[in-house]
Amino acid sequence: MTVASTTIDLLIIGAGPAGLALANWFRDSDIAVLLIDQKPGPTPRGQAEGLKSTTNEIFDSYGIGPQIEAESWRLEEIAVWGPKDGGDGIVREQVVPDKVEELGKPRETMLQQSRVEHHMLQNLLSHENIDIQYNTTPIAIDVDTSCTHEADAYPVKVRLLRAKRSKSLVNGAGDNAHGSETFEETLLAKYVVGCDGAHSWLRKQLDVKLEGDLTDSVFGVVDFVPKSNFPDLRRVCYLRAATGTILLVPRSNKEVRMYIPVESGTVLPDPKDLTFDRVMDAARKIITPYTLEVGSVSWWSAYRVGQRVGTHFSRLNERAFLVGDAVHTHSPKAGQGMNTSIQDAYNLGWKLRLVLQGGVPDDPQALLRTYETERRPVAQNLIAFDRGYLKLFASVSSQFDTELVKALKFTTGLSIRYPPSCAVRLPHGVSDLGPSLLKADLSPGKRLPDFQVVYHSDCIPTWIHKRLQTTGAFRVIVFAGDIADADKMARIKRTGEFLGDTKNGLGKLTMVSGGHLAPVEVLVVHCAERDKVDFMDLPDVYRPWSEGAGYDYWRVFADQESVHDGHGRVYERLEIDKEQGCVVVVRPDGYVGAVLDVEDLAGMKSYFEGVGML
Amino acid sequence: MTVASTTIDLLIIGAGPAGLALANWFRDSDIAVLLIDQKPGPTPRGQAEGLKSTTNEIFDSYGIGPQIEAESWRLEEIAVWGPKDGGDGIVREQVVPDKVEELGKPRETMLQQSRVEHHMLQNLLSHENIDIQYNTTPIAIDVDTSCTHEADAYPVKVRLLRAKRSKSLVNGAGDNAHGSETFEETLLAKYVVGCDGAHSWLRKQLDVKLEGDLTDSVFGVVDFVPKSNFPDLRRVCYLRAATGTILLVPRSNKEVRMYIPVESGTVLPDPKDLTFDRVMDAARKIITPYTLEVGSVSWWSAYRVGQRVGTHFSRLNERAFLVGDAVHTHSPKAGQGMNTSIQDAYNLGWKLRLVLQGGVPDDPQALLRTYETERRPVAQNLIAFDRGYLKLFASVSSQFDTELVKALKFTTGLSIRYPPSCAVRLPHGVSDLGPSLLKADLSPGKRLPDFQVVYHSDCIPTWIHKRLQTTGAFRVIVFAGDIADADKMARIKRTGEFLGDTKNGLGKLTMVSGGHLAPVEVLVVHCAERDKVDFMDLPDVYRPWSEGAGYDYWRVFADQESVHDGHGRVYERLEIDKEQGCVVVVRPDGYVGAVLDVEDLAGMKSYFEGVGML
Repeated sequence: MTVASTTIDLLIIGAGPAGLALANWFRDSDIAVLLIDQKPGPTPRGQAEGLKSTTNEIFDSYGIGPQIEAESWRLEEIAVWGPKDGGDGIVREQVVPDKVEELGKPRETMLQQSRVEHHMLQNLLSHENIDIQYNTTPIAIDVDTSCTHEADAYPVKVRLLRAKRSKSLVNGAGDNAHGSETFEETLLAKYVVGCDGAHSWLRKQLDVKLEGDLTDSVFGVVDFVPKSNFPDLRRVCYLRAATGTILLVPRSNKEVRMYIPVESGTVLPDPKDLTFDRVMDAARKIITPYTLEVGSVSWWSAYRVGQRVGTHFSRLNERAFLVGDAVHTHSPKAGQGMNTSIQDAYNLGWKLRLVLQGGVPDDPQALLRTYETERRPVAQNLIAFDRGYLKLFASVSSQFDTELVKALKFTTGLSIRYPPSCAVRLPHGVSDLGPSLLKADLSPGKRLPDFQVVYHSDCIPTWIHKRLQTTGAFRVIVFAGDIADADKMARIKRTGEFLGDTKNGLGKLTMVSGGHLAPVEVLVVHCAERDKVDFMDLPDVYRPWSEGAGYDYWRVFADQESVHDGHGRVYERLEIDKEQGCVVVVRPDGYVGAVLDVEDLAGMKSYFEGVGML
Repeated sequence: MTVASTTIDLLIIGAGPAGLALANWFRDSDIAVLLIDQKPGPTPRGQAEGLKSTTNEIFDSYGIGPQIEAESWRLEEIAVWGPKDGGDGIVREQVVPDKVEELGKPRETMLQQSRVEHHMLQNLLSHENIDIQYNTTPIAIDVDTSCTHEADAYPVKVRLLRAKRSKSLVNGAGDNAHGSETFEETLLAKYVVGCDGAHSWLRKQLDVKLEGDLTDSVFGVVDFVPKSNFPDLRRVCYLRAATGTILLVPRSNKEVRMYIPVESGTVLPDPKDLTFDRVMDAARKIITPYTLEVGSVSWWSAYRVGQRVGTHFSRLNERAFLVGDAVHTHSPKAGQGMNTSIQDAYNLGWKLRLVLQGGVPDDPQALLRTYETERRPVAQNLIAFDRGYLKLFASVSSQFDTELVKALKFTTGLSIRYPPSCAVRLPHGVSDLGPSLLKADLSPGKRLPDFQVVYHSDCIPTWIHKRLQTTGAFRVIVFAGDIADADKMARIKRTGEFLGDTKNGLGKLTMVSGGHLAPVEVLVVHCAERDKVDFMDLPDVYRPWSEGAGYDYWRVFADQESVHDGHGRVYERLEIDKEQGCVVVVRPDGYVGAVLDVEDLAGMKSYFEGVGML
């Protein structure tokens, strides 16, 4: 046994969806990241599966959207079945499009967790600053709280138990228990993040409690190829019979996933006692008079749903964080587990990156604290939703349809609005925006709704989140209105000159110098006829020049009809006044930091001062 | 030096776009294919770049469409510039959408040849029946014509010079000239195909001549990052000044490709004498008064255009074939080189596969002969087009716009119609269809126009060519009309029963048995309201049952509004009468073999008898 010691900027414990999503933030940076997992390697299967459009936008921003989309199974329709009047059996009540109009694109797709992990992992492999070590277990942690306020300190000391890469492991035996030696290593890190799941080791070390309860719902879940004459097997199906309920979700490989609650009586069933036959027997009773045979089963399980949230999401002066299942659990029926974990990680990643790059010299803790203030309420709201959803699903309610449509919008994340903070600025003189709506609106703290625009220079259409790659940069998007009009052009010229002014404006943040990526990228979305605008007439900050690459043609967009893909109608959808326009500050995670008047130069400066970047 | 001998079903000489496209036909078969190339490995760069939508449909059918699409650069607009009246300089005359309405999708994308080859190569790697050997040169061929009519014979004897895989090669030195030994091998093959480019070795061995001439056009072509104030650098640009012409095509990596003819005078310039500076000087004169500097150059070349077609595309009783540049050359300006090569290979591949699988017991030569009768006229027409196109491009014609729109349609392949043959059947009593139109119509010998439909069972939209994967199967598509109507349902039931009848109908070809893929797959496209049709009411052949996978839900489609992707309007676009319907026989390469009445059962049988499959 040997003891070695090394330093690292960021230690991520757990290489599941949350850990991999977090690590993806550090591509193309010089931040040293180590991702460890006690497993011997990537797992070939996983239970989570539903991907919401917001999560797919995250994959777009990581550059792996096309691969994931190509493998995903789309969901287009939801069939609602209820008990037949005055008799046994079930009857189709209605078919609802699986669609949220505000999104302008599919709401949900299905891809199994292991493939999602695969693509996120592949995306890390060519980045030498990110290391991944399997067969590695943390066994002790000690944080030196005396230096957690020093930017250059490594206050986190973690002892790891690692497997030597013995021959049997390299050959893919994949079993750490036999024939491999282990050794201990002590690691010093600036930050540590626990993405280590429901039984999180780090959560226990940090003394974070889960608040809430196990519910009395025990579920069976089965992935199988059905052989059945039931007509809606390829639709999402809510089957509510007198004898129980089933949720069916189609997936790839001709399989469907079936969720079936085994209802509680006076004696709660123990998930361990549930057999496959008992699950299928219960399902057959519900789906009667249709047949239900099993062609093949790729996976099945039984579990009791816990609905719990961690008391803290970060500790020790924001040197240690917990992400995903480590701090919240709920039922899998709304397909929120993997999505919420990835979105947690996505919220935290850019903040750690910005701080580790020295981008927030004063009080970086203030920015890092927003991880908890932003994500903990999301988990709490999710669990409140989950309680209602479980009840709704189990009952035969006349309100089912209305509630279902609300649920579709909720699970898409349309109600998430982060509270005011150093990274979310309310408009001047406004102290409270009131409750957030189930709507894709342009509001500080909400995600920038995705929209289609065309590039000014070539009319190629793009959705904006595909363009907002996770480089770590904020974006200032100038919604310029009709800049074929001289007044409006003059207005955004003044704004552009301020944004590019390295002395009195934001030039220090926006102008590329020495090949480094600027921490703030300036974009324009206008609604003028493209050929009435002289591109060269725009200030530098909107089309910067570089010696090697000439002008940057990829910052100016038009809200107009594309050649092949229709019209995005951005101004209309986001309710932006074409006369007034506006400036939207978009955080690196695609959330709106501020919505300002086009000429509110002081407001723009004040936003970045608030984050701590100026 | 050692001499070994081995047998193989198919030898493909040349692993460029044509050879790789051909090899892709043999995935998931038990046909032994060897692909050889004298190069030491895949090339990192290549000159061809434009991909037409038809070629992208081929990639879809090979399952590599998403990867290629994700890397491709779209072209949306074409700007036409002409000389300024009464003075030097140029002026924008108009901007034309780079669109062919009939396609319903982008007409052309840009991806460099090496990436196209990469994806086709990757797609072969997991298929053990397909072997690829670089560093391998054919040195002699001998065909035993006495046995070319015997199905099981190996009449093609080829002597190969191969490099031993010496250490330096494995380590990626990639140079065959030094430090590696070679050895000779004699190979016996059933068929040989030369995809070995403009200087084809096989063409010379087969004594095939190229007819036609070198033109007097010498072109310079440059891929570079421009630094310029010219406003249309990101559009396809036809620049026609008094001093010459330029074609600009935007590509990825901030580059543009520039084609510039160096006009012939009394003394033709030799391409070898053309310098980069001379090319750029000529370009600067044309683009005046705009500036044109070079940021960086990734590739440039100069060449004289040849316009030539081989006298034969196949020889020796259809045991030897020539594909792509080996039998036709023309100017690269219409972006037809790589496309035509891939399409040649796509035409030949399924025929060889079907014959090698024993699917055409009698007179397989008749089917194989259609490769030449179908593809040689395509090459001839292409060269005729190219002559006009070169002239058009070089002149200042008032007809330019009209001619350009025609050219867009022509280069998309909309006029290609293969002549009647054993695989292309004219309607009863019709002996001549007249000239083919520049139109996406449903006509024997033309490519099935791509269209969007939704799956009956789940409303997921698909374009039909994505669904028509290259399994080697023909498809019988029953355009069934509104089958909520009892008469129409009864009609397609009768047709379905015939198609599934193994005694008197086409069941031998259409019904899956013993896990083997049937050589003919039956699909339905109806235009009924989906929930008014009982899926289980359809005959087996439309939704076959398998013990492991239950019913096949992926053969029945509806022409209706999708949830997220609009309406394909197939019946309208293809001008199919909703009352009458029709049956379309689609060949494995996506071309229409026959268009028949829904109840013309004899016609269906006769088609497959004609091919030689019955």
